[in-house]
Amino acid sequence: MFTLDPQLAAETWHVCDLPLCRVLLAKNAAWPWLILVPMREDKVEIIDLSAVEQGEMWREIEKVSRALRSLLAPDKLNVAAIGNVVRQLHIHMVARRVGDPGWPGTVWSAGASAAYSVAEKEEFIDRLYAALHR
Amino acid sequence: MFTLDPQLAAETWHVCDLPLCRVLLAKNAAWPWLILVPMREDKVEIIDLSAVEQGEMWREIEKVSRALRSLLAPDKLNVAAIGNVVRQLHIHMVARRVGDPGWPGTVWSAGASAAYSVAEKEEFIDRLYAALHR
Repeated sequence: MFTLDPQLAAETWHVCDLPLCRVLLAKNAAWPWLILVPMREDKVEIIDLSAVEQGEMWREIEKVSRALRSLLAPDKLNVAAIGNVVRQLHIHMVARRVGDPGWPGTVWSAGASAAYSVAEKEEFIDRLYAALHR
Repeated sequence: MFTLDPQLAAETWHVCDLPLCRVLLAKNAAWPWLILVPMREDKVEIIDLSAVEQGEMWREIEKVSRALRSLLAPDKLNVAAIGNVVRQLHIHMVARRVGDPGWPGTVWSAGASAAYSVAEKEEFIDRLYAALHR
């Protein structure tokens, strides 16, 4: 049974589940910031997944990349498996724009945060869901 | 023809070329920090690669991950496509240890730097080369 790490659960909203990964939206409106979590127990590194699971994860990263590009036309996608704090394997996918908070630094260097309104959050999740189910 | 971005060229040493990616070692001994660059012109995002190229890139990331794990037994691998500064597609692969500079922050937050001696650099590149050609 897969259980989402409590810190990831606290800091995100649920968007949808793809075949392998749970797609989460970070509760931080400073940047459009998704997190993909392979729904498998006790995975820390990408290479802890089987070859088949890795292939599926890359396909889902591609799918989410294309959704972010179609919705937001970002200047750069940042895709990263860090996991120094939360060890459960998760992939950050951040749509960056020239001039956004901390640009061109990483979101971790910038450390900015901003709140979504309920309406903004719900609208963005609805648009993400639709783009991922086209 | 593939040309390595001049900033990447200036800040790294060449380790070897895999079928798709050039493997580079960052000139920063603060962390064992490799950079993979798909040897294709005008690629910025992972999704700019063809499906076949993406598959090959993930296989090479897996290969480099296993080499870093076998050589260094890191506490965490950080694998990231950022590219906000250097737009040529490149993947950072950093072997992190609990208590290393800036831990558990990212290498971009920490901003540490340290110099390799010539001997250290040559020995590490030799060991990486051997681990990638086993």
